[in-house]
Amino acid sequence: MKDHLSGFSVIIEQAVAWGEMDAMGHVNNTVYFRYFETARLVYIEQLGGFGWTAGHGVGPILAKIDCRFRLPLTYPDTISIGVKVIEMGSDRFKMLHRVVSHTHQKIAADGVGVIVGFDYDKQQKAPFPAEVRRKIMTLDRPGEFVY
Amino acid sequence: MKDHLSGFSVIIEQAVAWGEMDAMGHVNNTVYFRYFETARLVYIEQLGGFGWTAGHGVGPILAKIDCRFRLPLTYPDTISIGVKVIEMGSDRFKMLHRVVSHTHQKIAADGVGVIVGFDYDKQQKAPFPAEVRRKIMTLDRPGEFVY
Amino acid sequence: MKDHLSGFSVIIEQAVAWGEMDAMGHVNNTVYFRYFETARLVYIEQLGGFGWTAGHGVGPILAKIDCRFRLPLTYPDTISIGVKVIEMGSDRFKMLHRVVSHTHQKIAADGVGVIVGFDYDKQQKAPFPAEVRRKIMTLDRPGEFVY
Amino acid sequence: MKDHLSGFSVIIEQAVAWGEMDAMGHVNNTVYFRYFETARLVYIEQLGGFGWTAGHGVGPILAKIDCRFRLPLTYPDTISIGVKVIEMGSDRFKMLHRVVSHTHQKIAADGVGVIVGFDYDKQQKAPFPAEVRRKIMTLDRPGEFVY
Repeated sequence: MKDHLSGFSVIIEQAVAWGEMDAMGHVNNTVYFRYFETARLVYIEQLGGFGWTAGHGVGPILAKIDCRFRLPLTYPDTISIGVKVIEMGSDRFKMLHRVVSHTHQKIAADGVGVIVGFDYDKQQKAPFPAEVRRKIMTLDRPGEFVY
Repeated sequence: MKDHLSGFSVIIEQAVAWGEMDAMGHVNNTVYFRYFETARLVYIEQLGGFGWTAGHGVGPILAKIDCRFRLPLTYPDTISIGVKVIEMGSDRFKMLHRVVSHTHQKIAADGVGVIVGFDYDKQQKAPFPAEVRRKIMTLDRPGEFVY
Repeated sequence: MKDHLSGFSVIIEQAVAWGEMDAMGHVNNTVYFRYFETARLVYIEQLGGFGWTAGHGVGPILAKIDCRFRLPLTYPDTISIGVKVIEMGSDRFKMLHRVVSHTHQKIAADGVGVIVGFDYDKQQKAPFPAEVRRKIMTLDRPGEFVY
Repeated sequence: MKDHLSGFSVIIEQAVAWGEMDAMGHVNNTVYFRYFETARLVYIEQLGGFGWTAGHGVGPILAKIDCRFRLPLTYPDTISIGVKVIEMGSDRFKMLHRVVSHTHQKIAADGVGVIVGFDYDKQQKAPFPAEVRRKIMTLDRPGEFVY
């Protein structure tokens, strides 16, 4: 487990729920994005949470996300979900999410998301507050965002 | 279909999604409550929608709900979902939700929910506005709520 | 917590996920039934799991379920979900599910489900195997199922 | 609408459900992948469905998928979901999924998925049956899959 998630600044752990499987008997593809989201929100909490997105100020918006499915998950299993910022730009950052199966001791999925700063008052893209950028740099020391 | 949903003031129709099935190959039990909710919201829109629940005034809160599963649903199928108020009290009403399978021409599920008026300013139960009660009486002529 | 779930033979614990909240900012009603299901499956595993439901033999089918919402859940929170059999019949049993909020130290929801034995070979209701009934009696000593 | 989905061989239409929105008041990101899946399954039905995936023969497995969110969806709205194969390889094809909002008459999201042929008997990747490939070529005339 440690090898697969070394360098991830936020890691959460949870059980696979039976109801997350679909008619093929595997965890449904949409559920992986819920796994990513759940870990991503823990990360965002560490940046000050959604306080800056309650209708005012500059908050995060998910602009893109992908997932590469590497191993089908089944119930019962326990998973670790890691997330870290891998690239940082002025008004956006890129996050890597990773799901690891405890049963198989293997990576089940990797996904990359792009989060963009959005000014809810002006209703347009905007740079993240300096404090948020500083916290991310401290947590993950990401490289520069490549367009 | 008409027989199974005669007397329902709101009826919506939608396709069963493949992803709504679980590992048993049937639509998962939690999805029936989503079906109910979707139709219930159309009903509530007809009462003036969630305008009266945006943090102010008296809005609806789901206090109880049940479901009797009568027929397992599978993909592909199309369903009709009916909803009507069957009992009306001063600060609550009881709704009957019904899901009918087009493939089987049978009732797949029945569910009863209790919706309570909640004053978001005072943070306590409260009677529904007279206008809302009048609209419900016009739509469904429900009997008196039996505690 | 202990008081609210004393006497429950199966108790699981999990974090509330941000994505389980709906547009009202509370955990959506359908999610409570997923909570119930997740704990119920752990219970069923203890009875021998779904081995007896893989297309052969007599397995459990959810015939009815309800939920009484007593406290709105929000993210972040951790919940304990308890489940126990409260009534036992020849071909069915009744389960009580309970969700307790750690933040509020209160019961968030109670739900009762009726599980019926189904013979997958004969495609009809059927008594549960004696071994399953014995395990349930040992776990919970339920009363007699009241029709 | 027609402009946004011209050239899509499969297009389905459905209402946005209230419960698909999350606490931000927009359709949750995981739901877009459910939208994609629902349309994708209609496409796969046209290729002969999951008959070839019931534990035998060569069936489709989702290896990768992404989504670019272009417009936040809210309830109420109706969406059209289009899907087409845009690249075809021997043992895989690439699909473009597109969600269009009727209210806004704009593209809400685009997503690309890679579907790989999997031999369930041999438990390894495998070329799709010639008949499946022929049907896809007839429906969409995709270019060659670029690795």
